[in-house]
Amino acid sequence: MTRGKFIALEGGEGAGKSTQARMLVSALAERGIHADLTREPGGTPGAEAIRNLLLDPPGEGWGAEAEALLFAAARADHVARRIVPALDRGDWVISDRFVDSSRAYQGGAGQLGDKAVVALHAIGSGGLRPDLTILLEAKEDHVAARLAQRDGDNSDAIGGRDITYHRAVAEAFRRYASEDPKGFAVIDAGGTPEEVHARIMSAISLLPES
Amino acid sequence: MTRGKFIALEGGEGAGKSTQARMLVSALAERGIHADLTREPGGTPGAEAIRNLLLDPPGEGWGAEAEALLFAAARADHVARRIVPALDRGDWVISDRFVDSSRAYQGGAGQLGDKAVVALHAIGSGGLRPDLTILLEAKEDHVAARLAQRDGDNSDAIGGRDITYHRAVAEAFRRYASEDPKGFAVIDAGGTPEEVHARIMSAISLLPES
Repeated sequence: MTRGKFIALEGGEGAGKSTQARMLVSALAERGIHADLTREPGGTPGAEAIRNLLLDPPGEGWGAEAEALLFAAARADHVARRIVPALDRGDWVISDRFVDSSRAYQGGAGQLGDKAVVALHAIGSGGLRPDLTILLEAKEDHVAARLAQRDGDNSDAIGGRDITYHRAVAEAFRRYASEDPKGFAVIDAGGTPEEVHARIMSAISLLPES
Repeated sequence: MTRGKFIALEGGEGAGKSTQARMLVSALAERGIHADLTREPGGTPGAEAIRNLLLDPPGEGWGAEAEALLFAAARADHVARRIVPALDRGDWVISDRFVDSSRAYQGGAGQLGDKAVVALHAIGSGGLRPDLTILLEAKEDHVAARLAQRDGDNSDAIGGRDITYHRAVAEAFRRYASEDPKGFAVIDAGGTPEEVHARIMSAISLLPES
């Protein structure tokens, strides 16, 4: 049994990750590859329960440390109960966000620092890395427009933070990609969904055969 | 303003921690010391929500890693939102369980190891230690009787584990106490609650004045 490939889609709010994840799963299916579409935080009953605590905190909101630990707990469940079993079956896994979101949001742009987030991932999930992380880069004015649009009833405890924070998140993502050029494909999120999808399929075709 | 003292009560199931914590708070009040009585996991709205996930897990139960991360997240909220503010006000804090329960249950007796649990506590709560940890040591037959009694409708995901596990927990607690004799008071949990309380008050009287 050939182990499946694990692909994570990363990027800030409004980059089109969810749309592209769905299009990627369909394109793989046409090529006879079964891919499990999942997301973080979430993807298992336990991790979805933690997701609810993260996006709608009881009390006065989570501090940086508790928030990072909750993300890591959700990820540990997701990796152990869903991602690794799927890869072991030979399926591919496409995840809308993974550990680099924690690194960017809680580590790089947050108060905790990258080292602590990486340490939590090592303890919680054995430091599992995707075979490829697709970083969708949107233009900043597009992000600002999406954030403004979400400022209505749809804003949550993470997405609802200000533009300075989201700018630091984008910078952190770029830094992680530049530090690991083989592990990342940086994709321009501009143009139609079909245009972005074509760029992603081109990046996937460069994955080594296992 | 003199910073308050932080006392944790530790020990296995059925050692009488909750009763002794209440008696200690009353005795301190008679001496004019205001003490905040709290417990883990829990003690804040956020940590109590995490407690519910821990004791009644959604899905198929937590793996060792997710469980340890959830305990650390609850503790981070408890320390930041309740314990440190109370100590800063000059109050004492009496906590029914603290980090050494995570070390014993998830680290020493669990699959994770003490080093990982200590690392999570360093990231989540700055490695905060109580001024004194009171370890209540119950006879093993007493513990077995309490466990059998709880096997009915009152059993939860942690307390409901078997006697071998609870024996390993007791051994881990003893090891931590022997490694830090100044930080621990090991108290015989046998006899009446009043007798145990007298032993605890004697241990407290040995705390250095701040």
